[in-house]
Amino acid sequence: MSRQNNIIIIGGTACGPKAAARARRLDSNARITIIEQRDNLSSATCGLPYFLSGVVKEGDLIQRDNNFFRNGLKMTVFTGTRAVSINPKAKSVEIADIKTDKHQTLEYDRLVIATGATPTVPNWEGKDLKGIFTLSNIPDAVGIRRYVSGLKNKKAVIVGAGLIGLEAAENLVAMGLKVTVLEMLGWPLPTLLDKEIAFQLEKHLKSRGIKLMFGQRVTGFKGDKAGKVNKVMVGDTAIDAGMVLLSLGVRPNVSLAKEAGLKIGTTGGIAVNEYLQTSDPDIYAGGDCAEMVNIVTGKKTLVPMGSTANKHGRVIGTNVTGGKDTFPGVVGTGVVKVFDLNVGRTGLNEAQAKEAGYDIVTSLVPSEEHATYYPGAKDILVKLVAEKVSGRLLGGQVIGRGEAAKRTDVLATALTMGATMDDVANLDLGYAPPYNSAMDPLHHAANVIRNKQAGYARAISPQELKRKLDKNKKFVLLDVRFPMEWKEQRIETPQTKLLPLPELYKRMNELDKDDEIVIYCKTSIRAYQAQRILNDAGYKNVYFVDGSLDAWPYETASNKQELTK
Amino acid sequence: MSRQNNIIIIGGTACGPKAAARARRLDSNARITIIEQRDNLSSATCGLPYFLSGVVKEGDLIQRDNNFFRNGLKMTVFTGTRAVSINPKAKSVEIADIKTDKHQTLEYDRLVIATGATPTVPNWEGKDLKGIFTLSNIPDAVGIRRYVSGLKNKKAVIVGAGLIGLEAAENLVAMGLKVTVLEMLGWPLPTLLDKEIAFQLEKHLKSRGIKLMFGQRVTGFKGDKAGKVNKVMVGDTAIDAGMVLLSLGVRPNVSLAKEAGLKIGTTGGIAVNEYLQTSDPDIYAGGDCAEMVNIVTGKKTLVPMGSTANKHGRVIGTNVTGGKDTFPGVVGTGVVKVFDLNVGRTGLNEAQAKEAGYDIVTSLVPSEEHATYYPGAKDILVKLVAEKVSGRLLGGQVIGRGEAAKRTDVLATALTMGATMDDVANLDLGYAPPYNSAMDPLHHAANVIRNKQAGYARAISPQELKRKLDKNKKFVLLDVRFPMEWKEQRIETPQTKLLPLPELYKRMNELDKDDEIVIYCKTSIRAYQAQRILNDAGYKNVYFVDGSLDAWPYETASNKQELTK
Repeated sequence: MSRQNNIIIIGGTACGPKAAARARRLDSNARITIIEQRDNLSSATCGLPYFLSGVVKEGDLIQRDNNFFRNGLKMTVFTGTRAVSINPKAKSVEIADIKTDKHQTLEYDRLVIATGATPTVPNWEGKDLKGIFTLSNIPDAVGIRRYVSGLKNKKAVIVGAGLIGLEAAENLVAMGLKVTVLEMLGWPLPTLLDKEIAFQLEKHLKSRGIKLMFGQRVTGFKGDKAGKVNKVMVGDTAIDAGMVLLSLGVRPNVSLAKEAGLKIGTTGGIAVNEYLQTSDPDIYAGGDCAEMVNIVTGKKTLVPMGSTANKHGRVIGTNVTGGKDTFPGVVGTGVVKVFDLNVGRTGLNEAQAKEAGYDIVTSLVPSEEHATYYPGAKDILVKLVAEKVSGRLLGGQVIGRGEAAKRTDVLATALTMGATMDDVANLDLGYAPPYNSAMDPLHHAANVIRNKQAGYARAISPQELKRKLDKNKKFVLLDVRFPMEWKEQRIETPQTKLLPLPELYKRMNELDKDDEIVIYCKTSIRAYQAQRILNDAGYKNVYFVDGSLDAWPYETASNKQELTK
Repeated sequence: MSRQNNIIIIGGTACGPKAAARARRLDSNARITIIEQRDNLSSATCGLPYFLSGVVKEGDLIQRDNNFFRNGLKMTVFTGTRAVSINPKAKSVEIADIKTDKHQTLEYDRLVIATGATPTVPNWEGKDLKGIFTLSNIPDAVGIRRYVSGLKNKKAVIVGAGLIGLEAAENLVAMGLKVTVLEMLGWPLPTLLDKEIAFQLEKHLKSRGIKLMFGQRVTGFKGDKAGKVNKVMVGDTAIDAGMVLLSLGVRPNVSLAKEAGLKIGTTGGIAVNEYLQTSDPDIYAGGDCAEMVNIVTGKKTLVPMGSTANKHGRVIGTNVTGGKDTFPGVVGTGVVKVFDLNVGRTGLNEAQAKEAGYDIVTSLVPSEEHATYYPGAKDILVKLVAEKVSGRLLGGQVIGRGEAAKRTDVLATALTMGATMDDVANLDLGYAPPYNSAMDPLHHAANVIRNKQAGYARAISPQELKRKLDKNKKFVLLDVRFPMEWKEQRIETPQTKLLPLPELYKRMNELDKDDEIVIYCKTSIRAYQAQRILNDAGYKNVYFVDGSLDAWPYETASNKQELTK
């Protein structure tokens, strides 16, 4: 290039620095300028919850120091500087030093908007009281640490049981706080997980001392004379609070783009094409401020993730230096560690798939992360959602103390590539006793769906069984485990009949063909077997409970004390 | 079905019992007979190495007791019984009780051959001495434990550095033995890993006290007066041995099938179609005795794995009861834990891809399993092999103390679905600091290949650099790290020039445009950056070293002592 390519990048967290570094590698002579409102480029904001408790150190959150960009990559870096406006016709950006308010105008050939997103803060009464925080940047986190260290009332209320809220909950507990989580919807990670998966998370959070309150709509906050928050109001109910963290999701920062006349998508993010160009072909947008395609539905979506922001940055870095790279979209993968639980999800959950109009079939399969004979096997629960006729994978959720992130990534890959249940069931996954069983939990989960598709397997969900029990419906709840197992743990109800699988053939006449029979065992393997045997013997109205006891989120009864006598 | 379907299954380890259980679920009335030469069905032979050291208990190796099959699944089970011959015309099998030698003939409608494989034992002199073992079933393992417990010369020699050999090495060390591994080829897991990946394994094995001898062709064994092995002969060299484990791979057990006139494939396994039918449509074969398709090459292969045997069993169980299921093939995935290292591979390695005639491009990328700021991040080294023009993934290898099994499974999934480097680079993998970085190691590895495809990145392998150094070629080995890093660890050679990346622009004139320049840093990120800068400045003959110091398997020099003064 004879003429120097003049690139300006607004935003220095993830997408911006990545675009800058990529652009530099592809065009050693380009003029590259980065504008960042805070003090540091390239900050690892995903580490913020762990910084609260000191698990992560502040210095470690800065991935690259500013000098790396200035000297190593020969860029102009403005920190403590905000972009005031974009003039697409003049191809210029007005910027202002935040401290001095000195303004200047910079010209560009290509502009990159990587302005990120801002935590949602509803216009609640008292929202500006001291001690009410959001958590999206290093100053936020430093502020929380400082506030908590001087706190007398060691009670934290987290509003919103999303990813950041739950990561923060773990770390606030580690800081010695008593934590209550308020969520407007009915369960933790409500937009990510289906109810029966979230139930496992709920149980675990409770076991670690977190108080959970669902269906709670916050109306405001109250404070003391010093202007410090001391109550979260839910209508007339006041919840005692020493500090409050609002984690209600984020909104893309689009005002600069909007004021410059760039197209904003229906999702509220900046509209971009596959090259990540905005409606002005010389202006690109990426990261949390831009909308993206959901590969599963083909529709536009907003999934703010540092991982996506980095991929965006690379595509933009290529394209602003004359290349042609594209970003295909996301499948909505998320993983999160919550205390000892690993939680992952990708694609559409059951609720989302139904809402999108798919005719679906699901499976719910509890198992162990690896061969049970190899020491240390931990539990894992997999839910898959597939399209009924085609068997195409639509989404998956994995939760447990066992290795859930691996299965989530495999599902994300399968989903991206358009895999069906036949594909998933036959995946040649690595097998050795420390890592999995000969049949991976994903194989089982896909096979359950194939069995349902073929009409072999007929199941009801734990929720459906609970509803039946609550309504005191007439049916037989057939437990096909051994009496020893029954004593140890069981679903206690008058509808129960205990008939161990090995005795089913000879004692079948104890069952009435006119009855509805719902079967359970520990994991549903034996229950499914029993369903098949009964079907073949002419029993028509027979179902097993998806996931059986190991996935049963409700109360169970036990005679353990008797057993240990 | 009015007439009872009469199914006979020969072999009771993995494929056989799985086929039986599946057949029972789909046809409650079928007559199902299993014939097994040993005492137990459904044994977890993959746990055998861990049983040696007591990590796994004997009882745990039996997945399901025989009564489960007899009573729970209403099958006829012959244990301690061998199949003598198959008569496809009469549709019958002759069986014999191994103890009593009582013969009988059973008729079948459908027959399943799941006879497994037998460890290879060359016709070496002295091979029948006491203390020479193979490890493929529970009696083998019990025999080794008993022998070792009475052993005075606590030296084990393992012949063959394959999967079983290395798993056994770890467990024999745990039993207090001094272990030597002899391997005919040049590195551990020679048919699975490329040399530079295997080097990491070699270093680790040595660090754990394993003596490794490569390029060693065993010629025989010598024993004491009691007929117990005490020497392994490699030509004229005698290696002291208290016991010997032969782990030279397995051969499919096909003699029954062959004598019955069934077609044997060119791989030596029983030939089957996608329904796992042999050349006789009423006879099916699956598991280690059958050949299968390699999905990557489309060619027939033998990959004996318990995971595949289980999948085969399900397909066969469906098809012998009148269904139509198919098995698509394998991609050759293998994972193994060797002491503290996790090792995984899938698809074709570089050598295999070249042998298969592909024009390829590779990457070698060292990194950490998850965000380095989150505690406990362990190392991981990824090698990818892709087709040059199309960018199609052909295979991958992952090794390190970090989470390698996850990445291997993701690659196996991508490979199965025909993913390209563009696909892998944009996979929406789950991101949270405890699990990975914003860019997963797989993203980096795919991007390196894309950079090479686009002509941006030009690299040489560690082996190529080593050859250059050994031949004392004239070139500049440019280290672009900081002096501090150089003092701590470096490739020591007179060709070295230290020029930290941030100074490259201003000190570029110290480099001669006519020289060949090979650049390294810690992980190759800076080296690649420097290569790009030099290319743009008119330096043509410039390369970086794939993986740089973190993937460098050869000796390095250090001034650590000076530094700590």
